[in-house]
Amino acid sequence: MNKKRKLGRGVAMVGAGMSAFDMFKDRDSKDLFAEAFVEMSNSVDKGLDPNDIDALYIGNFTNDFFAHQSHWGAILSDSLGLVPKPATRIEGACASSALAFREGVFAIASGFYDVVLVGGVEDMSKGSTETVAEGLALAAIPYERKAGFTFPGVFGAIATAYFERYGASREHLMDITIKSHDNAPLNPKAQYKATIRDMMRSKIKRAKEKGGAVPDWSDEKDFLRDPIANPAIAWPMHLFDCCPISDGAACILLVGEELAKHFTEDPLYVAGVGQASGRGLNAADDLTYFEATQHAANEAYEMAGLTPADIQFAEVHDCFSIAELLHIEDLGFFKPGEGYKAVADGLTRLDGEKPINTSGGLKCKGHPVGATGAAQLIEVWEQLRDKAGDRSVPNEDLRIGAAHNLGGTGGTCTFTILERR
Amino acid sequence: MNKKRKLGRGVAMVGAGMSAFDMFKDRDSKDLFAEAFVEMSNSVDKGLDPNDIDALYIGNFTNDFFAHQSHWGAILSDSLGLVPKPATRIEGACASSALAFREGVFAIASGFYDVVLVGGVEDMSKGSTETVAEGLALAAIPYERKAGFTFPGVFGAIATAYFERYGASREHLMDITIKSHDNAPLNPKAQYKATIRDMMRSKIKRAKEKGGAVPDWSDEKDFLRDPIANPAIAWPMHLFDCCPISDGAACILLVGEELAKHFTEDPLYVAGVGQASGRGLNAADDLTYFEATQHAANEAYEMAGLTPADIQFAEVHDCFSIAELLHIEDLGFFKPGEGYKAVADGLTRLDGEKPINTSGGLKCKGHPVGATGAAQLIEVWEQLRDKAGDRSVPNEDLRIGAAHNLGGTGGTCTFTILERR
Repeated sequence: MNKKRKLGRGVAMVGAGMSAFDMFKDRDSKDLFAEAFVEMSNSVDKGLDPNDIDALYIGNFTNDFFAHQSHWGAILSDSLGLVPKPATRIEGACASSALAFREGVFAIASGFYDVVLVGGVEDMSKGSTETVAEGLALAAIPYERKAGFTFPGVFGAIATAYFERYGASREHLMDITIKSHDNAPLNPKAQYKATIRDMMRSKIKRAKEKGGAVPDWSDEKDFLRDPIANPAIAWPMHLFDCCPISDGAACILLVGEELAKHFTEDPLYVAGVGQASGRGLNAADDLTYFEATQHAANEAYEMAGLTPADIQFAEVHDCFSIAELLHIEDLGFFKPGEGYKAVADGLTRLDGEKPINTSGGLKCKGHPVGATGAAQLIEVWEQLRDKAGDRSVPNEDLRIGAAHNLGGTGGTCTFTILERR
Repeated sequence: MNKKRKLGRGVAMVGAGMSAFDMFKDRDSKDLFAEAFVEMSNSVDKGLDPNDIDALYIGNFTNDFFAHQSHWGAILSDSLGLVPKPATRIEGACASSALAFREGVFAIASGFYDVVLVGGVEDMSKGSTETVAEGLALAAIPYERKAGFTFPGVFGAIATAYFERYGASREHLMDITIKSHDNAPLNPKAQYKATIRDMMRSKIKRAKEKGGAVPDWSDEKDFLRDPIANPAIAWPMHLFDCCPISDGAACILLVGEELAKHFTEDPLYVAGVGQASGRGLNAADDLTYFEATQHAANEAYEMAGLTPADIQFAEVHDCFSIAELLHIEDLGFFKPGEGYKAVADGLTRLDGEKPINTSGGLKCKGHPVGATGAAQLIEVWEQLRDKAGDRSVPNEDLRIGAAHNLGGTGGTCTFTILERR
């Protein structure tokens, strides 16, 4: 990982679209991907002729398990009417579509293809909660599962280790949850569009209507401390520390850099891509960082010739509130053990100096596993291209954003830096 | 598909290794891949320092289902001691590791990586036959499954259509089965190492020992006609028309062409890679060819500047005997409707003018789904590098071989041409 990586040909992003994220009882992966594809096509300023698409890379974690169907490359090439365009499904647990993005970048940089569709999809909501939990567990390192860890259990252990080492507490994680819920109502695609304050008001109103005891929460943290409103899942991970189960799809168009202006006068450029693997928790020296995030970030920074200070905003993989905290340190935005103080000081809020998860994050936007990596990059696209509406980062000179995606319990991590020139 | 594709940087194959293929009750995917990895490492003439490996691409169809574990990129990077090397799992049903090979080619051609490990693994044998059948069905196009088709059913329908159109019969498919069983005993890695004649002798011997009725088969075809020895699965597919259930792994080392001589004085070069998607049978105009095979082959031939006549031998995806017949026509080796006559004339036998499946094919070498595409390319490696022992193609000037891999019922097809210079 000490080599400076570079591409033989630059790659640009010229279109992006995603479905709403939610639990859709009557829509499957084909429906959701079609919705994302249509929005992506319409987003290409100078129009897209589908015949110009050379190949597809589809991130999907385990529709094998969730929807009892594999081979999603071929199925989506067929359902979008793109046969015989080659289509490849890419899997890296929750990082699947960030990997698909990277394969699209390599395929174009290799000179073999000029125009590549990358994206991801997951259809999680059709089975029982037990089925979803069992499916998600397929992403963990086998040792962790054998030891009896669930995903909330893993991240609960990580949080405990972080608290012990750096003196943080649940109160600091609540800052992250409150921020995610503040950003999400500004994102029309988000699964949860209520702030914590909205939820408090609606629960108080309902209690009054029912004539029962009316909660007397003093503020948002008081609500999150309430074990009825916010029960423990795996201490210190409570319900509002955990992202939801979601269905959704996301779709991006990549082209060779020299072709970008045929599609739009305002492309984004792929400045850096990094990916790394991590060992299981059983082998970790320390639970308070993700080694794979650090390696992936270094690779991307070196390729881009940028430092953490240059990243103006980022989406990071907040499958649990504690994960966001570790990532903003691992990515170099804040020093180890300083992240929670930065969050408490509001630095990661929309109007802070390093806005994180302006989309609402996995916590509120939703986490259809295979679609998440691409959807994070679409948030970067919308911010950099002035399409983020009320959740736009208030910076007149927004040029560089990034997305960090994590698979499993840190087995696969990516970091991708996009640039508007 | 009418563009001539090319790579910005050439790619060479400098190492290859595979596990034995069989049903291993006490060995899992990590064990099998480690075996393939060690053989690959030892095959690199000038030695391999694992630290020089930049990234891994792992083909796997659905260990999610078969072995209740996903995220095989990260798991194998970890189990081989290669963390933090990035690892990506690639899925395209039965073509998964041919796609992994292609992604490795693109990643190197892009300039980002120099040394990439590609391969595949599948661990199919631990569940019941019903579990395996259910898992395999995840690769089919959904319409086919809804219509009640099984895999033997699909290929039975294809065979019936071919018979009707071209006047072939089961007798011609038997030529393919007999050939595969003749080649396999010469391959130490093959799952079935007995010729049809060997099996006849052993059954006759056993019948004599037991004192029962002794079969009076006149020749191999007479044995294959016997509905007790070779029962129908989905007419006209009988037991000996179908490949087995297998566990196994295969592993290949790719490097930038200009680096090849650091690893060996005798590398193979990637001359052509092609991949395409196909529609389901529900949408097929005609069941007697695979559109995706034809498109993939054209792409690879154009890139390589070669024609079917230039391919001196090939591995093709004989999941069922009829599939081999269609592929040798779709790849342009024989005209449509002429393939079965060529087979009957012995042209595809080891000493024929176009040897096909010298390894024994999926039928006899075995078919651990995610490992098959890479294993086919390893057979090409062994033939071109004079390592095929008694099954060597008897040609003093062997330079060009190819492998064809098919996923599902034709949803994904690849064609890869390797060259020794």
